[in-house]
Formats: sequence, C-alpha cells, structure tokens
Amino acid sequence: MCICASNIVSCSKMNLTMVPSDLPNYTAVLDVSFNEITGLRAQWTKHKLPNLHNLLLSHNGLSFISSEAFIFVKQLRYLDLSSNTLRQLDEFIFEPLVHLEVLLLYNNQISQIDRTAFTGLTSLQKLYLSQNQVSRFPLELVKDKNRLEKLSLLDLSSNRIKVLPIQDLQALPAWIKNGLYFHNNTLICDCELYSLMAHWYIRRLNSAVDFKDDHTCVHPGPDKRVLRLYDLNVHMNCSTFKETDQEAYLEQTLTLSCDTRHRNMSKTWMLPGNIVVPLGDNQSIVVLKDGSLEIKSIRPEDSGVYTCFGVSEYLNETLYVVVKVHNFTLSGNGETLNTAYTTLVGCLASVVLVLIYLYMTPCRCFCCPDQGKKNQHEDSIHSSMLSATPTHEDMATKAELNRHVAFIDPKDLQGQNGKVNPNGEEEVDEEAMQGKGKRKKSVADSISSVFSDTPIVV
Amino acid sequence: MCICASNIVSCSKMNLTMVPSDLPNYTAVLDVSFNEITGLRAQWTKHKLPNLHNLLLSHNGLSFISSEAFIFVKQLRYLDLSSNTLRQLDEFIFEPLVHLEVLLLYNNQISQIDRTAFTGLTSLQKLYLSQNQVSRFPLELVKDKNRLEKLSLLDLSSNRIKVLPIQDLQALPAWIKNGLYFHNNTLICDCELYSLMAHWYIRRLNSAVDFKDDHTCVHPGPDKRVLRLYDLNVHMNCSTFKETDQEAYLEQTLTLSCDTRHRNMSKTWMLPGNIVVPLGDNQSIVVLKDGSLEIKSIRPEDSGVYTCFGVSEYLNETLYVVVKVHNFTLSGNGETLNTAYTTLVGCLASVVLVLIYLYMTPCRCFCCPDQGKKNQHEDSIHSSMLSATPTHEDMATKAELNRHVAFIDPKDLQGQNGKVNPNGEEEVDEEAMQGKGKRKKSVADSISSVFSDTPIVV
Repeated sequence: MCICASNIVSCSKMNLTMVPSDLPNYTAVLDVSFNEITGLRAQWTKHKLPNLHNLLLSHNGLSFISSEAFIFVKQLRYLDLSSNTLRQLDEFIFEPLVHLEVLLLYNNQISQIDRTAFTGLTSLQKLYLSQNQVSRFPLELVKDKNRLEKLSLLDLSSNRIKVLPIQDLQALPAWIKNGLYFHNNTLICDCELYSLMAHWYIRRLNSAVDFKDDHTCVHPGPDKRVLRLYDLNVHMNCSTFKETDQEAYLEQTLTLSCDTRHRNMSKTWMLPGNIVVPLGDNQSIVVLKDGSLEIKSIRPEDSGVYTCFGVSEYLNETLYVVVKVHNFTLSGNGETLNTAYTTLVGCLASVVLVLIYLYMTPCRCFCCPDQGKKNQHEDSIHSSMLSATPTHEDMATKAELNRHVAFIDPKDLQGQNGKVNPNGEEEVDEEAMQGKGKRKKSVADSISSVFSDTPIVV
Repeated sequence: MCICASNIVSCSKMNLTMVPSDLPNYTAVLDVSFNEITGLRAQWTKHKLPNLHNLLLSHNGLSFISSEAFIFVKQLRYLDLSSNTLRQLDEFIFEPLVHLEVLLLYNNQISQIDRTAFTGLTSLQKLYLSQNQVSRFPLELVKDKNRLEKLSLLDLSSNRIKVLPIQDLQALPAWIKNGLYFHNNTLICDCELYSLMAHWYIRRLNSAVDFKDDHTCVHPGPDKRVLRLYDLNVHMNCSTFKETDQEAYLEQTLTLSCDTRHRNMSKTWMLPGNIVVPLGDNQSIVVLKDGSLEIKSIRPEDSGVYTCFGVSEYLNETLYVVVKVHNFTLSGNGETLNTAYTTLVGCLASVVLVLIYLYMTPCRCFCCPDQGKKNQHEDSIHSSMLSATPTHEDMATKAELNRHVAFIDPKDLQGQNGKVNPNGEEEVDEEAMQGKGKRKKSVADSISSVFSDTPIVV
C-alpha cells in the first residue's frame, strides 16, 4: 500500500491508524503524515530500525507518545511531530535520540514541558515549538551545563510567554540569539525588553529583523494595549538605546569578542587605522583560537574602532568594536605604583646611600691628626668588618646596605686615603673632650676604612 | 492560511492550485505537498528566496516544470517532486541547483531523461527515480568526467530497464554500487548479470542484499519466465561465481584498493600474519592517501591475505584481499635484463678495453731498438695526437677510446719509459724488412708515447 523507493517508505494520507509494523530494516525515511495515528506506543516498531533517520508523523492527531517510543530508532536525525494535538512533553521523552538534529513540534497544544524533556538531544540544532501554549521560557535549553550545545534555532513564537529572562538572554552569544524566535507572545512591555530588542535590531539578528512587526508586548496598564517592541520607547518613555563602547584601563589585558551571528565562522581582525592584525606569537595583539582579539598591556593609543570580519559558507559579517582606553590603571586614579617601580627605586636609593657612605661621610674623627692616626692602628682589625646583613624586603622603605668590607693592611690604607677631611678631625677632637671620644673614634675608624681604594668585598 | 513556524512555511493539503507568491524571503522550508499545483512556472516566486533549502511539492499532479523554475531558489538542498505526473526531464532543468543534495522524483511517469537533465547538480548525493518508466540506464550520472561526483544513492528500481552496462557498473567503486538500486526492472537474464549480482551479494552491498528477492530478470526464451537473479546459475547453467585473487609478478609494484561500501572511511591495513602496516616513509609497504596499500618490488613471500579495516560513523567494514605473487617478472620468464644492467656492463667493458689498450698492447714495433729510437725523435711531435673521438652511444657494443695524449718532451719520455718490450722491438724490425716499416714505425711511436708516466690528457 505504501510507496517504496529503495530506502524511503511513504505511507502518507492512507487513513492509517497506526504505523505499519512490518517495516524493512533498511528503511531510512518513513513518512506517515496525514493519517489518523493518535498515539505512538512503545511497540510501534517490533524491531530495531537502525537506518531510520527521518520520521514524519505530522497531521495525525497524535496526542500520546510513549516514553519508550524511540528506543528502536536511535539513529533518527529528523523528527516531525508538527500539527498534532500533543499537550505535554514528559521527562526524558526524547532521551534516546542522541543523533537528532531537527525536531518539529509546532502547531500542537503543548503547555507543559518537563525540564528534562529534551535531555539527551546532544546533536539537536533546530527545535520548533511555535504555535503551542508554552508559558515558561525554557532557559535550560540554552544556558548552563545541561544546555543543548549545538542548538542554533529555538522557535518559541506564537506561545503564551509573559516574561523573558532578559539578562540571561542578553548574555548569550549572538549565534544563539540569532535563532531565538519569541515573537507573537504575550510579553509584558517594559524598557528592559525594549533595550534587549533594540540591541538585537542593531545587530541585525534574524530573530529580531525578520519578525520586526510581530514583536509585540502587552502594556501593563489597565487598557492592555498591544504595542510593538521596536517603538516602545515612544509609548513608555524608555531611554534611547545606544551600544556601549568597550572600556579598558592602562596596562590591562583586553579581550575583544567577535560575536558573529553564525557559529563557526572564520574570523580576522583589523586594528584602528585599517592595520590587519599580524600573525606571530610575540605580538602584544593576538587573535585567539575562538576568534577573539587579545590586546596585552593596553595603552591609550590603542583606542579606536576594531573591526572583525566573519566569513562562512552562508554569510559574511563585519563587526565593529569601539575601544576606549583610560589613561590610568584600574586599581586607582593616577596611582602608578607597581612592584617593578618600587624595587627599582629601592635599588637606586641603596646605591645612592652606599655612594654617600663611601665618599661623603662626615669624618668627625680627623680633627686631631695624631689621635686619629693612633686610633686607626689600634682599631683597624676590630673594625674591619663593617656592614650589617639587611633583607631585600621592601627596599623602597628600608634601603639598607649589604656589604662586608675588610682591610688587608691598615698602614697602606692610611697612605692611599687622600680624602681625609681636616674639618672632620677637629670635630672628633671636640667630642672626644666631652667624654664620647672612645665610641666616636671607633666609628670614625670604620668609616675611614671604607675610604680605601682596595677593600675586599666579601 | 499556511502554518508559519519562524522560517518554516507549511501549506500542505490546502487545495492550492499554485505556490503562494508572497512568501517571506527568510523562508527556509516550504511545504506545498498534497495540493493541486499542476505546473511550476518560471515566476512561481516573484523574488529570490535566498534561504529556501527545502521545497516539498509531492502529491500535486505536477506535470510541467519550467526550465527557469529554480533560478530564484539556488540554495535548495532538498527537493521533493515525488508522486506527481512528470513525464520527462528536459535539458539542464536542474542546472541552477548546485547545492541540491537530495532529489526525489519517485512515483512519476518519467520516461524521457535528457542526458543533461542533471547537469550542474554538483552536490547531489541522493537521486530517487524509482517507480517511473525509465528504459535507459543513465550511466552518465556515475561514469566519466561529467558524472555527479558526490552521488552515493541512485534509485532506478521499478522502472523499465532491459539492459545494464555490466562492465561499466562492475568497474565502479563499491560505495557507488552500494547505493545503486535497480531491482524490479525488466532486465533480460544472462550469466554476466548473474556474475555481477553474485559479486554484489558477496560484497554485501546494500542495493543487492536489501532487495535480494526483488532482483529479477526475464528469461530470453519464448516463455518469458521471470527468474530471480541470485539463483540464475541453476536455471541458466551459469558457472559458479568466485572472487578472483589479486595476482602480481616478481619485483612489480602492487596497489591494493580498499574498496569499502561507504565513502570517506578511515582505513587501516593488516599484512598476512596479522602484522599491522607500520607507519613511515621508507617502508616498501605504504598506505596511500586514498587508503590503498602499495607494495613496492613485491616478492613471493608477500603472498597471502591482506586485510583492510574501514571505519566510519555509521559502519565498520573488513575487507580481505588475497594476493598471489608469481616467481618471475611480468616481462618474460627469467629475463632480468634492464637498462641499468646493460649500461653498467657497457661501461665496464669500455674501462677494461682502455686498460688493455694502455698496458697490454702487443708492441710489435720494438724489435729493433735503434730504429724505434730514431723514429721516436722524428715523429714525436706529429704523433702526439693519438686518439679518435668516439661517441658514447651503445658503449656495450662499440667500447671506443676517447683520449688525446700529448708529450711535453720526447727525450725525457724515453728515459721515463721503463716498459719497452724487447720482443716488440724485434717484431717491428722484422716487419720493417718486409716493406711495411714506415707505417708500422709511426704506429709504434704513438703506442710508446702512451707508456709515458706523464702524459697530458686533453
């Protein structure tokens, strides 16, 4: 009775009340549309149909699908259940269909969709739920870890959805939003919704542009007027939507996303001034694997319009990203301190202190040449070890000296030291008279030792 | 009136007599099946439908298609014209459809197919022509340069084909034969046809196995009995079909094809003795890019069963190739001459002759030491140019000398020449007495000059 063309079995419009049970196992396409099959039982096929990839069941008055209806047809890629009288989608009902790419459920009476109804459809690309009675936006299909990863078309138009998860939708990549249809619903008007749609229009997303006049909402006032979303700002005094620029701060690493309307486009970037992004690993500007552009340690000169060209088999797309770089870092206005600077300043301070210590010591002990000489001889050995052992921590504030100086022969040093300050000698003499001589002399000896040209630096 | 679900427009079973003309340009799927559209005119759509990829026109009583019907829908991937009343397919009728992958034409009344009807369908993978009145096998679709390169399913079942181009079909790759359906035709029985089908059964090609009982033929006798192809050998005394082994000759390069039933399978090989073919460039056995196995300079030990494993998403396949290597080369029994050998032998012969000429000349002129000496002085300058200028052609047979020898000082040479043969001198003397002295002496001088240790080779 059916028409068989090699692996196609076409039994449409044959007044069947159930699917023919004696199907050959090589059947690849089974068309039983326009019949009177009201239920799809678990045993609608007695044996596995390992080659069946298209099953057409539209226009049948189908109101029941067994939870085990698809266990023998796991290779299905296209399932048409449109124009039936289905009322609900039970938990895990499509779970065996891991290869399913297109699922048509439009023009039914579906009001209840279990959150796990579409679980397992890991290959699903297109899901048509238009013209049903769905009132909850099934966000789990496009968001979070259990989402359908390949879903690029979700048609929820002509349903009964009143509220959209606007923030979540706005955060989705453009290639999902491009195929997210929700026109002809009973959305409640508000300015957030207007902003969402205004952005989608500007991005020329298909779901917004193709159904511009069908994107309506219900005014929350008592008159329940139906307004068009794209001129909602006129009716509700919403502020005019404007795309925000991408802002960055000095030295920050900025990643610009090339958020194209189609998935898997090949992407190239152009910098401000129409410079094509050069290839190479050591550049400060690189195109990442996912097509994003990464700018390392950004400078104010990097501000401008960045252009991304997306190319695929079906669409060429050009995206502009305006980048504005602030002339200060993110951590505070004008604050330019960082580890490198403080370390450098610390080192310089240390060096300056050492030089002062070496060449500009106020030599207070040399006022009395004889006493000074004698003390030198006595103390030279004891004072030969001069310095402390400072830590490197926070050199900017401590700036200590890290040197050990030893003399080979104190006598030689006296001869080599040509910078003895006569004023200093007088000072030491005066202080010695006041009872502080002993300590001061020792210090002076130590200092004079550093005047030598041949210290051994340990 | 139609049901619209985002980019799907479904107008099936709505008593339409023509395709709706005001289709939105985002339409991707248009279903106008089960209507009364009897012709598809050039202007069935007034504007381009750049997104239309599925057009369903089945069950319409369609009998006419304009040659310009598809110029506005060039992105079509799936075209269903099945279950209509088409009678012929005109030249270049589907030419604009370069993206078309599936074309359904089954259950029409097609008897005339122009040889260029399917020209341009470069992406076509599946063509269903079942249940028509086709009487000529359209070999041009699968053979020669204008063939449809991606066609993997051609359904010609239930037509009126009487004769198949058996040799051409047998030469096709298995992945084409696997999808080449021609059961339920009016083929005339013969043993070649039996052999063809026997081979297809053994290879378990889908087109043969799935329709084993539908492969029938008409006995050419007066009774016009319909026989089944798979037991034709019983009725017509055909010899039992047996797969032939792959034969090769010593030192030959043999290429074994891994002729899998599906296209684009990943292929690996196993040698006799279950040795997996090792990777690497310098092997004598390599797997080529197309999955074939190449065996260079084959030896008798290479005989045995080679196994190819084909793996794809839908099918795993194992193929066995029996190789038999003869113990002699293809060009003749035991004949091992080749150009390299003859050239080498020629060169060696030349060298040997030169050496004989240089060191083992029968020196007939040195019988009279005095005369020989005198002549040497006289003739040294004139005889300094000795040799001829032979060609290099056919050195094995000619083996000539290609040397010019000149003396710097004949006197010195005399001293250096320590290999003068006293017997040779006597000979020359004798001959000189017989009146041949003059010529012989000259020759002897030339020869003696070659005995020198310091010739200048020009």
